[in-house]
Amino acid sequence: MHQGQDGDRPSDRRRIVIVGGGFGGLACARELGNSPIEVTVVDRRNHNLFQPLLYQVATAALSPADISEPIRRTLGRYRNIRVLLAEVTGLDLAGKHVLLDHGDPVSFDALVLATGSEYNYFGHEEWRAWAPGLKTIHEARLIRQRLLLAFERAELSGDPEEKQALLTSVVIGGGPTGVEMASAIAELGRFMIERDFRRLQPEHFRVILVEAGPRILSAFPEELAEYGRNELEKAGVEVLTRLPVESIDKEQVVAGGRTIRTGSVVWGAGVKASPAASWLKVEGKAGGRVPVNPDLSVIGCTDVYAIGDTALGLADDGKPLPALAQVAKQQGEYLGKALRLRLTRGQQAEPFRFHNRGNTAVIGRNAAIFDFGTWRLKGRFAWFLWAIVHVYLLVNFEKRLLVSIQWIWRYLTRQRGARLIDENAATFVPASTERTET
Amino acid sequence: MHQGQDGDRPSDRRRIVIVGGGFGGLACARELGNSPIEVTVVDRRNHNLFQPLLYQVATAALSPADISEPIRRTLGRYRNIRVLLAEVTGLDLAGKHVLLDHGDPVSFDALVLATGSEYNYFGHEEWRAWAPGLKTIHEARLIRQRLLLAFERAELSGDPEEKQALLTSVVIGGGPTGVEMASAIAELGRFMIERDFRRLQPEHFRVILVEAGPRILSAFPEELAEYGRNELEKAGVEVLTRLPVESIDKEQVVAGGRTIRTGSVVWGAGVKASPAASWLKVEGKAGGRVPVNPDLSVIGCTDVYAIGDTALGLADDGKPLPALAQVAKQQGEYLGKALRLRLTRGQQAEPFRFHNRGNTAVIGRNAAIFDFGTWRLKGRFAWFLWAIVHVYLLVNFEKRLLVSIQWIWRYLTRQRGARLIDENAATFVPASTERTET
Repeated sequence: MHQGQDGDRPSDRRRIVIVGGGFGGLACARELGNSPIEVTVVDRRNHNLFQPLLYQVATAALSPADISEPIRRTLGRYRNIRVLLAEVTGLDLAGKHVLLDHGDPVSFDALVLATGSEYNYFGHEEWRAWAPGLKTIHEARLIRQRLLLAFERAELSGDPEEKQALLTSVVIGGGPTGVEMASAIAELGRFMIERDFRRLQPEHFRVILVEAGPRILSAFPEELAEYGRNELEKAGVEVLTRLPVESIDKEQVVAGGRTIRTGSVVWGAGVKASPAASWLKVEGKAGGRVPVNPDLSVIGCTDVYAIGDTALGLADDGKPLPALAQVAKQQGEYLGKALRLRLTRGQQAEPFRFHNRGNTAVIGRNAAIFDFGTWRLKGRFAWFLWAIVHVYLLVNFEKRLLVSIQWIWRYLTRQRGARLIDENAATFVPASTERTET
Repeated sequence: MHQGQDGDRPSDRRRIVIVGGGFGGLACARELGNSPIEVTVVDRRNHNLFQPLLYQVATAALSPADISEPIRRTLGRYRNIRVLLAEVTGLDLAGKHVLLDHGDPVSFDALVLATGSEYNYFGHEEWRAWAPGLKTIHEARLIRQRLLLAFERAELSGDPEEKQALLTSVVIGGGPTGVEMASAIAELGRFMIERDFRRLQPEHFRVILVEAGPRILSAFPEELAEYGRNELEKAGVEVLTRLPVESIDKEQVVAGGRTIRTGSVVWGAGVKASPAASWLKVEGKAGGRVPVNPDLSVIGCTDVYAIGDTALGLADDGKPLPALAQVAKQQGEYLGKALRLRLTRGQQAEPFRFHNRGNTAVIGRNAAIFDFGTWRLKGRFAWFLWAIVHVYLLVNFEKRLLVSIQWIWRYLTRQRGARLIDENAATFVPASTERTET
């Protein structure tokens, strides 16, 4: 009944629903833009977010708007794509409908799950209130406010022990996000104490990076990880490895038997996929990821596809593909093209193959690492390349210009952005407000 | 006992406490910078805010960080000035102490109250939850989110009446803030419907400006106000005068017997001074403002001064000075110099005199009005002058550059900024969350 060639009559059009407007979902939607297929993108947020730079929002270097764009705008030029701001509450796989918290169910001929991942607290959800991860603008703002507020409270405090605790930041997880956060906090804190505070001593300011495994940056070759550790330590970050976290509460982190009193904690230790597996009633693997076939269709389901952090795909060597933006983006592009071929011409695409574009982490002013597999890069040039690549990856010319100007300004003056603490911060109680921000 | 000439010995230094880091408080603090006086600035927010452009944050044209700066940074270069992030809970006038919610009381030889104003709901505090004013970044974000969310909900809605209500924005109060908000909402909405939404019709989109008095822009000469009204109507805003508000709730505004179903309401109808009068136990006048002598000292108090919206000062013609940024700024500068003279040399300054720098409002793309008293300006040139003046008034070169680029970009593309709705917006319940944002 549904034939691609009838695409001009809206009621006969084939329908694709994409859940999630991140790197994967958007790449997929773009490939389907201006096709005779009716595409619906559903996201519970109205914006996509350039997550690699989110740590700069959390440390007051950039504004949220610098690294986000409304999904509606990104896809606005494609008249066949509709965007819905709604939360998916479940799937009706037999009837081929996606169920939403607002509005009618949306029917599909093919469904793409690109719901991304969230931080994994390994069964300790109560830690989330004290140790937010870095996945959303909300969390980035929360981290920024706690960090800045800890400094403000330290300035007001007359108790040396409390002062010391408030000036101690703990970052949990030695992956790229943890490393980037730790070095950015160190830079921000040192600058603020030196210039803007009157009663804080630099020697009381500590940033501690806690990693459970034997070394940080474990996804990178040992040589680069070692360089990263040295640079971090030069920037004043204490790196503690083989220290699994045992508890986190409002005032302290206990890890490997050591108690660290702290004013702000950031969580960057491992992710898990969002609840797509439970919607599909399939067994998620490796942190809830949904196993997929080489064409990215979900194993055991018909007309359902998964990409990015949601999917557990395999590389050529049989190993699981990492949860990286570049994987999501490549899978989205591939799947968009493949679905277009399938639904408009009835053709089957070649299986997906991942092309490694290199893995990178920035350690701070003038230091970054790149791992391209065959060759590696570190130091000032890597840092410069990192900056160029990340500006280039931003969504349009305006944002590239705005971010470039701010980076150049920060580099020359060491100043940070507006360092905003929201106006109600004076009555700031982290746990109760965590999930109620509007 | 306290003598200015002993200023080099910290314990003998004269102490000034300034409550409030807005236009007035900061201007006062700057004049006291690098003097032998110990200055403490207390604010419950860590940033100052360039309020004249706050409506652009509320309508997604600028980021909060573009128009704010940490008070700490602004005053960081003056080593005799200390900044405290705390809320004033009261004054001990006999003992000359300011009481704070965090940290020890702060003692003063002279106290400057520059606490500004807040929106006046004329005894209907329950309206605040549905009709936020535009005084803080928190409120600007709230307005932005409600506005954008109403559009998103309208796109999802299948009920034509609900759609119409969600696409109706009501702005209450025909002063400059109300006019600026109404025209900015009209511009934003029209652009979004045209380009980014699929199921919204431009004819369902309404912006209604409700004014209780006989005309809008009542602080301006009739000729300019009339021009403003025409420009607003050209931009698609319905201007309703002589319509006092009777009730506001989640779904509708009742004014002058008319019921308007609406998806978002903004309040801009009159301000009242913040609680300085009650701290001082003096009788506030004209919306809680504290009557002051020609030297800005509070009538009936010793060593206590009030400036800006907190103070009720008189112009040369005996009329009360308006609650404008330029008044606050001039009073702050005057008082800083006067206190420096008094506390370091024992000299008395001349009484304060206000110099009118002109009053302005922007009505939208290519339209603004200026009233300089003796001459008036309106139209495209006034709009251009408005833009130049407001960029110039920003705090530093970086912000001037960033805002200029964004304005030029918006002007050329009609695009708005990131139009961020925070991630928890899908479960957005205005009333209960209004005061709990972190």
